[in-house]
Amino acid sequence: MTAVRIFRNARIVTMAAGTDLEPVAGAVTVQGGRIAHVGAEADIPAEIRAGAEITDCGGRLMTPGLIDCHTHLVHGGDRAREFELRLDGASYEEIARAGGGIASTVRATRAASAADLTASGLARLDRLLAEGVTTAEVKSGYGLDAETELRLLAVARGLGRHRPVRIVTSYLGAHALPPEATNAADRAAYLDLVCDVLIPAIARDGLADAVDGFCEGIAFSPAEIDQVFGAATAHGLPVKLHADQLSNLGGAALAARHGALSADHLEYTDAAGAAAMAAAGTVAVLLPGAFYVLRETQLPPVALFRRHGVPMAVATDCNPGTAPLTSLLTAMNMAATLFRMTVAECLAGVTREAARALGLGDEIGTIAPGKAADLALWDAERPSELVYRIGFNPLAARIVGGAIDPATSPWSPSP
Amino acid sequence: MTAVRIFRNARIVTMAAGTDLEPVAGAVTVQGGRIAHVGAEADIPAEIRAGAEITDCGGRLMTPGLIDCHTHLVHGGDRAREFELRLDGASYEEIARAGGGIASTVRATRAASAADLTASGLARLDRLLAEGVTTAEVKSGYGLDAETELRLLAVARGLGRHRPVRIVTSYLGAHALPPEATNAADRAAYLDLVCDVLIPAIARDGLADAVDGFCEGIAFSPAEIDQVFGAATAHGLPVKLHADQLSNLGGAALAARHGALSADHLEYTDAAGAAAMAAAGTVAVLLPGAFYVLRETQLPPVALFRRHGVPMAVATDCNPGTAPLTSLLTAMNMAATLFRMTVAECLAGVTREAARALGLGDEIGTIAPGKAADLALWDAERPSELVYRIGFNPLAARIVGGAIDPATSPWSPSP
Ligand SMILES: [Zn+2]
Ligand SMILES: [Zn+2]
Repeated sequence: MTAVRIFRNARIVTMAAGTDLEPVAGAVTVQGGRIAHVGAEADIPAEIRAGAEITDCGGRLMTPGLIDCHTHLVHGGDRAREFELRLDGASYEEIARAGGGIASTVRATRAASAADLTASGLARLDRLLAEGVTTAEVKSGYGLDAETELRLLAVARGLGRHRPVRIVTSYLGAHALPPEATNAADRAAYLDLVCDVLIPAIARDGLADAVDGFCEGIAFSPAEIDQVFGAATAHGLPVKLHADQLSNLGGAALAARHGALSADHLEYTDAAGAAAMAAAGTVAVLLPGAFYVLRETQLPPVALFRRHGVPMAVATDCNPGTAPLTSLLTAMNMAATLFRMTVAECLAGVTREAARALGLGDEIGTIAPGKAADLALWDAERPSELVYRIGFNPLAARIVGGAIDPATSPWSPSP
Repeated sequence: MTAVRIFRNARIVTMAAGTDLEPVAGAVTVQGGRIAHVGAEADIPAEIRAGAEITDCGGRLMTPGLIDCHTHLVHGGDRAREFELRLDGASYEEIARAGGGIASTVRATRAASAADLTASGLARLDRLLAEGVTTAEVKSGYGLDAETELRLLAVARGLGRHRPVRIVTSYLGAHALPPEATNAADRAAYLDLVCDVLIPAIARDGLADAVDGFCEGIAFSPAEIDQVFGAATAHGLPVKLHADQLSNLGGAALAARHGALSADHLEYTDAAGAAAMAAAGTVAVLLPGAFYVLRETQLPPVALFRRHGVPMAVATDCNPGTAPLTSLLTAMNMAATLFRMTVAECLAGVTREAARALGLGDEIGTIAPGKAADLALWDAERPSELVYRIGFNPLAARIVGGAIDPATSPWSPSP
């Protein structure tokens, strides 16, 4: 018989659909890394309780482990120097001459070894874990050649062997045109590489859980994204899309047409896009960090998503250019402050809806029987404290597959 | 002879006026808690070096310890529930009925014991210290009666006995009218209490290092602030002012007229105010956290301050209503992102200029001979990384009076 662990004396917010944020005193029973029972301690059958290891949570607040469903946290270099130059008033041309922009990250990423990428990626990942993240998505997309993109995906997958965390990977070959591509023929050749060589290889080797793209004037057209998504679908990989961030190219509807797990950013999405997403069950992943950094004024249509019943997630978008953000708690605060999402929406956005955005709605994201026992315990009275504060981290314990991770848990139960 | 400690192999950014942000390899020699020498290791006299305890900083970046020169971090309760209700669409009336607003913090603060206030204040202070803060200012102002205001100042002072940190206190009796004051006579009586009873008692007992006020339509008029500042000056206490945050009542010029150490917020300050501040040497303390939380659109006149040579500081404004922010690194990022302050201005704003805003420009804020050896050591290449990232904390060690604080230093030198 598998060992049983009971987390008793918790104030539980399950984040199950239809529940509210009022904590309910109770216990979570874990068996084989999965949740076997949630509810009143008195309801745990005596024979289960008999052999169980019991952890007293001391009345702390318990939520599902947090899920960061959109990051680019594996990459070489940083853009701190560019950030400094920009504030000093340097022109785009001067910054480009100083080696700035996405090309600088591509250059640094190509030059970085797998060990370098792992070390810098772990430093960023550790900040997420310190705030109760138990699942993180990681995209490629700063290699833009076959060898580097495969290295990025392998490194991303590998992070999950270095830390107790679930890593979900996305192949983002269609992030930008490689710097060496200078004409239309190069462009077509790169897309053929993505679609005919890399997607098949990645699918075969199980390197990515999804294929992502960036549909924008400065990136790829809807027709090009169609080509990429067609290849993904042909090879059995789900898709997701950076859509409608800087302009409305109909990206949300395009994503929905391909049955995408999510469409992300969405500042310029219109009613037709929202309706299409709702019909397709595509999650809106909102990324207030990039909105904040870019000082955007066009807000994503949160009211429209509510009206159409589009599920909303919130993520860090952790990336060196437009969101050097490694705090999912801060992302929630920004979603509330800047996008006026409610506390309930913010919390669902980093748990239940983030799980859906990763195609893992049956596996993680709520505290429910059958799901993985990925949990977070907080020194907080109410879930709203996790959203309201900025730069405060009340995490007491991070629990992955029913085990407290000592490295990221300031609290440990008395033995 | 006092023990000597040498921090060698650091990349030092002294933040002395006129220097740039380029780290310079060298060593800092500390004697009796003060900086005795900064520069090339080879320049340290042999007789000093002989008996010294030597710490190898491993090439890490060294800056002055950070200074948060404007906080309200000692208070009872929080406003997380109010934050939640507001996002749910509750009206001001509904929130007031649910006990929201500053009155709720006053109520919670009056009800809190010194021990409660110390515990919750330390939790917030610890977040600041974890990011390299070595000096924090703390204001009263949520008691608004004699007993509670004195308790707040005593608790604030006491924080410095619980942690290795320099605490500077400000008496902010003129923060808001007490909730029980309902008419003009009550208003006058409260100001008389502040000016004739509390300021003299606070000055006599050394409970505050300065007197602060809030000049605004919703708080106190310029004439009332004149009265308060007159009393402060009569009792030898320097003054500072929450000025021009929501409207231009001439607060900056008023502060300057009283020779204030600082005027704070300043979104609505005009050219005359900036000129008056420059002439008086009054520091502009900019508080982007409150600007962000309130979703203000009126930016403080940074260009005007530059043109007039007004020194600029940056602080968290840590408070439960308009800035539940306990990260000075995030405040710097907000100052850069939202106010377009340069990286150099942001860093000077939490070191050299923050020291001036506290009247401690000769004591702390730069790495210079004679100053207190309050230092921060970072796992970073360039100072810009401290401003560029959001939610990332590269602090390696926090050094107070020449001693590494083990509780807030992830790194410890090999023995
Ligand atoms: Zn992205
Ligand atoms: Zn304030």
